[in-house]
Amino acid sequence: MEINLSAGLFTPEKNFLQFDESTVYDTVIVGGGPAGLTAAVYCMRKGLAAGIIIKDMGGQVAETAGIENYLGFRYVNGAELVDKFREQVLQFGIAFREGATVTSIQDGSVKRLVLDDGTSVSTRTVIIASGKSWRRLGVKGERELTGRGVAYCSTCDAPFFAGKDVAVVGGGNSGIESAIDLAKVASRVVLVQNLDSLTADRILVDRLGEYGNVEIIYGHGVTEILGEERVRGVSIRSVGTGETRNLEVQGIFIEIGLVPNSGFVKGLLEMNESGEIVVDSACATSRPGIFAAGDVTSVPFKQIIIAGGEGAKAALSAAEYILTQK
Amino acid sequence: MEINLSAGLFTPEKNFLQFDESTVYDTVIVGGGPAGLTAAVYCMRKGLAAGIIIKDMGGQVAETAGIENYLGFRYVNGAELVDKFREQVLQFGIAFREGATVTSIQDGSVKRLVLDDGTSVSTRTVIIASGKSWRRLGVKGERELTGRGVAYCSTCDAPFFAGKDVAVVGGGNSGIESAIDLAKVASRVVLVQNLDSLTADRILVDRLGEYGNVEIIYGHGVTEILGEERVRGVSIRSVGTGETRNLEVQGIFIEIGLVPNSGFVKGLLEMNESGEIVVDSACATSRPGIFAAGDVTSVPFKQIIIAGGEGAKAALSAAEYILTQK
Repeated sequence: MEINLSAGLFTPEKNFLQFDESTVYDTVIVGGGPAGLTAAVYCMRKGLAAGIIIKDMGGQVAETAGIENYLGFRYVNGAELVDKFREQVLQFGIAFREGATVTSIQDGSVKRLVLDDGTSVSTRTVIIASGKSWRRLGVKGERELTGRGVAYCSTCDAPFFAGKDVAVVGGGNSGIESAIDLAKVASRVVLVQNLDSLTADRILVDRLGEYGNVEIIYGHGVTEILGEERVRGVSIRSVGTGETRNLEVQGIFIEIGLVPNSGFVKGLLEMNESGEIVVDSACATSRPGIFAAGDVTSVPFKQIIIAGGEGAKAALSAAEYILTQK
Repeated sequence: MEINLSAGLFTPEKNFLQFDESTVYDTVIVGGGPAGLTAAVYCMRKGLAAGIIIKDMGGQVAETAGIENYLGFRYVNGAELVDKFREQVLQFGIAFREGATVTSIQDGSVKRLVLDDGTSVSTRTVIIASGKSWRRLGVKGERELTGRGVAYCSTCDAPFFAGKDVAVVGGGNSGIESAIDLAKVASRVVLVQNLDSLTADRILVDRLGEYGNVEIIYGHGVTEILGEERVRGVSIRSVGTGETRNLEVQGIFIEIGLVPNSGFVKGLLEMNESGEIVVDSACATSRPGIFAAGDVTSVPFKQIIIAGGEGAKAALSAAEYILTQK
């Protein structure tokens, strides 16, 4: 049992701790996706007094059907991977709060995080890993069938639709990239665009034109996703005539964008035009002692392993910052 | 068997392929550590015609005793994790070469990689993930006991020395940081420095002074690492008098630096003063179509999950580059 080697340091019996309002933590992590959870493991291993505030454990990972591109696992489903991440963080005595949202941060040499229930937490450094949310269609069936035919990430999930008929919603770059990813593996791809033309880059549209199994339906919006256990079709309605018809598909990729969960630090931190927090290569933001990692940041490509790597960087940067401040 | 969902795309029976000298690959990856192997998985999933040239499978991971900070695994040893990475890459039909070294790259719209056996490989893009090598002491017992008491990464391995006596070699920043990491968990830490003073930053030296269980031996070098199955001591020799004595320790951390494996692209790519390849946040180097990822680059902090994340970024950048060039 190699694990016993470290028994002096980490006792699995130690469980999540309550936050203590009178303590000044070394670091508090906001977010419980791969970036936040990896940051937590690194902070605890560096011996920091750390806490983590999580709205949804696992973040977008929890909504992903299957994962084949996280090194170490040939195949793992989203919920399983979140369980493993959770268990790994759980072994440490980290202050923990689930189901809560940070509404604002008061900056200073000690920073104060205000939560939606009116409580607050004091800390020397903050690691913001609050992620992005997929922009949702907001139609019937969408939430119920997420992970069961409703998908948002073609890089993650396209291979699971090999040989199937699938719809893609959205005519921007991510919609077309998604349709290309799917055209390679799916039997048929129907791209549904509410405008009369595509808004994606010309080069992407040309590439999509090379595939014979793609049909584009212009001037239509999706009004409902059909199916009980799994997606079996979508209802679309003409923007012009209001006429409705059904498409028989086994999957639907909703590619109408992602929204960074950065509203609570608007005005405090430098952001780009998409509302992503701008970070340098060590995950530092525009304010000393505030670090950010993962999908909420300006780092390109949104993937589990990338977010994890950024979370580790942010934690090590926070540890270095504390070392130079004390 | 969820894996069957993707059977149309990935057949596990497909094995590693030979490189074909007449083919122009979409991308060729140089290096088989976490960055290179993650890049391989992402390239194959993007449908690229890819190859990978590996000197040592697993890179530094293969030399790491135990890993507790790679999310998804509470504890895994280096060799096991390398096996999992290998198996995950093996499922794809990737051109593969092990035990070979790239000696130079001829740039152009098609790039030519020249190998140490005189063969060459043509490709549109290159992902350099050749890593770093620990600078070794070069003394008896070092190679034989690596992973069995001889360690190089305190962030990775310090917790395994809880309650033990351990030596650290090197009085620069990484030596002192390592000694601090170890002072928190080890019973006793002996820092061996060949000069008469430490060269680390003042603040780090001050921090180290706060620990009562650290002894510093100046003006001595390590001449041999003792032990059969595991480390049981080290021989040190006075630089002044030439006198030799033994220290009884169960571990030794060698912290005399890391050397980036970037010699084969010297003059071709922009590097920093440490010989690391300079990359932007999307892993692009100073030459179009040449990307770099992991420890060989200027990205701070050298960790498995960080290297993996960077490998994914490099692969997605290469895929984007190819899409815009074709």
